[in-house]
Amino acid sequence: MTLAVRYTSARTLDTAPASHSAPGPGEVELAPAFVGICGTDLHIFHGDMDARVATPAVLGHEMSGRVVRVGPDVEGWQAGDAVTVMPLRWDDTCPACRSGHQHVCQHLDFIGIDSPGAMQQRWTVPASTLVRLPDSLPLDRAALVEPTAVAVHDVGRAGVAAGENVVVVGGGPVGILIALVARAAGADVRVVELNPHRRSLAEELGMATWNPADEDVPALVGQWTGDAGADVAFEVSGAAGGVDTAVEVLGVRGRLCLVAIHPRPREVNLHRFFWRELTLVGARLYDRSDFEKAVALVADGTIPADRLISKVVPLTQAPAAFEALEGGGDVMKILVDCTDDTQGATV
Amino acid sequence: MTLAVRYTSARTLDTAPASHSAPGPGEVELAPAFVGICGTDLHIFHGDMDARVATPAVLGHEMSGRVVRVGPDVEGWQAGDAVTVMPLRWDDTCPACRSGHQHVCQHLDFIGIDSPGAMQQRWTVPASTLVRLPDSLPLDRAALVEPTAVAVHDVGRAGVAAGENVVVVGGGPVGILIALVARAAGADVRVVELNPHRRSLAEELGMATWNPADEDVPALVGQWTGDAGADVAFEVSGAAGGVDTAVEVLGVRGRLCLVAIHPRPREVNLHRFFWRELTLVGARLYDRSDFEKAVALVADGTIPADRLISKVVPLTQAPAAFEALEGGGDVMKILVDCTDDTQGATV
Repeated sequence: MTLAVRYTSARTLDTAPASHSAPGPGEVELAPAFVGICGTDLHIFHGDMDARVATPAVLGHEMSGRVVRVGPDVEGWQAGDAVTVMPLRWDDTCPACRSGHQHVCQHLDFIGIDSPGAMQQRWTVPASTLVRLPDSLPLDRAALVEPTAVAVHDVGRAGVAAGENVVVVGGGPVGILIALVARAAGADVRVVELNPHRRSLAEELGMATWNPADEDVPALVGQWTGDAGADVAFEVSGAAGGVDTAVEVLGVRGRLCLVAIHPRPREVNLHRFFWRELTLVGARLYDRSDFEKAVALVADGTIPADRLISKVVPLTQAPAAFEALEGGGDVMKILVDCTDDTQGATV
Repeated sequence: MTLAVRYTSARTLDTAPASHSAPGPGEVELAPAFVGICGTDLHIFHGDMDARVATPAVLGHEMSGRVVRVGPDVEGWQAGDAVTVMPLRWDDTCPACRSGHQHVCQHLDFIGIDSPGAMQQRWTVPASTLVRLPDSLPLDRAALVEPTAVAVHDVGRAGVAAGENVVVVGGGPVGILIALVARAAGADVRVVELNPHRRSLAEELGMATWNPADEDVPALVGQWTGDAGADVAFEVSGAAGGVDTAVEVLGVRGRLCLVAIHPRPREVNLHRFFWRELTLVGARLYDRSDFEKAVALVADGTIPADRLISKVVPLTQAPAAFEALEGGGDVMKILVDCTDDTQGATV
């Protein structure tokens, strides 16, 4: 018998035994090693996504682990392989899929929200979701591949080019990863973040930061760019003020990449979009090429994953970790360690 | 002595004699023939742009006419040449100009707003603003070149391709021109417009239309596109509801081209931008290539300019025409005829 972390109702998680049948055709059974807690997991924990999530729900979609056994008709994978999972299943028939954008399939199954996730000791997924990890990459760091793939996708959607001036509004895990990926693409990056802990971490990673509470960010961008304005802004804060800042810092033909989720409509300065011929680009999830690039960036240290992992907690303490994360922004990424030597999982 | 139409204060226009000195170096004196009344001219008339417009102001930037005399150092132009004017002067030194986007120069002089416009019998402009008209093109139709250049620019910014499904929200002069240019690019176009007169005209031009007051436009777009949603939407209405419609009709990776001026921030469904990976593109004015393409489209009849000209009034009746235009949308384009045989202007 293995354990799973389950969301049962608003603000309630438990750990419970779970049984697992053998993987079916095209499926693979994994032993998750490390699973990151994502902002979306916190939204579910808060009860904000109860209309979408069927309880009890096993959370988790930022993971690393190893193959335990493979089902019929699965080729190319064997027990012990180190993997991460691109947690998407699409229908291949809707207009989005037919136009080649499967990752935003109109009937997308996001594994870990719409179907059981990785915060358990055994996890069966379609072999098609597996992404191979290099043996040299420690599995704790590999749990950062999924959010890094988000950042790779966002930087690609914004079309960041070498030499461009980029402002990242919001310095949480995704914002920092975007800043790192944009810097790796040759951009000059500034991070705008209210939380001093997060600003400190960004600065330790070599990024200049601004505190929007006591600095005039658009004026600073003007000084930085010789009044040209930024080429690209990423809105990763989810706040109304973040949208305003991201619009205001952009120069002529600047691109705003919208990463954060804004559940309710926001007032947007459309006149500025007209006047400066700005572009707003929505970015959601990732595709396989983003994932493969993310693996490379985490493996070669471009993403200093160890610096972004604030804490690792055993699976049985995951419920407490969720409650601690509510306390605020003084942590970056918390990983749940699903390995349990008594169960024989191999990390 | 020649006459000019002048804006003097909110809701007040007059016609007054104007004197003209010889064109200076690099300048050309024109005899305007026909000048269209634009929505921006109406905004000025209403007093909404008093902070920007120095009075008395000669309005008008949609024009056709002929060269009367050329100043020193002007080559390639001679008296009698039929021309229109791209009414932009830029500084060539600001960051927008240096990045190749002179048409959105940070210190743009829009001739007809920031400096004297075309609603007069003699008009001196930089030779660099002239765009040649073919002799075969009647000058009344040629007054439609400037708004057609706006439409060409908008369709280009949206990247409309053959076979795409395009929704134009707002069927006034610019909306209709966008619909015509998009159709000429091979798109399948629908026009959303409240005013029955404007819908009728669009239908006479072969466009299908929807009335958002009594039709469920997003549902109709779903039926039309097999639930894929539109590829491109143009927001040309300036209304909050128009923005909502333009966002809602778009399918995955759809592009919304923002054409209308929204002076105040608007609530925008940013979640939809994220979820469907939409793009919003601001579009303002035009460049010389847009103007030259617009000349060709008006000259070859792709733009049926004669069908869009509701009325032509003599210059002395321009003030009354502005007042009539306030009455509503039952007209499309009104031209001011600046020619006056007693003044010897040659048309």
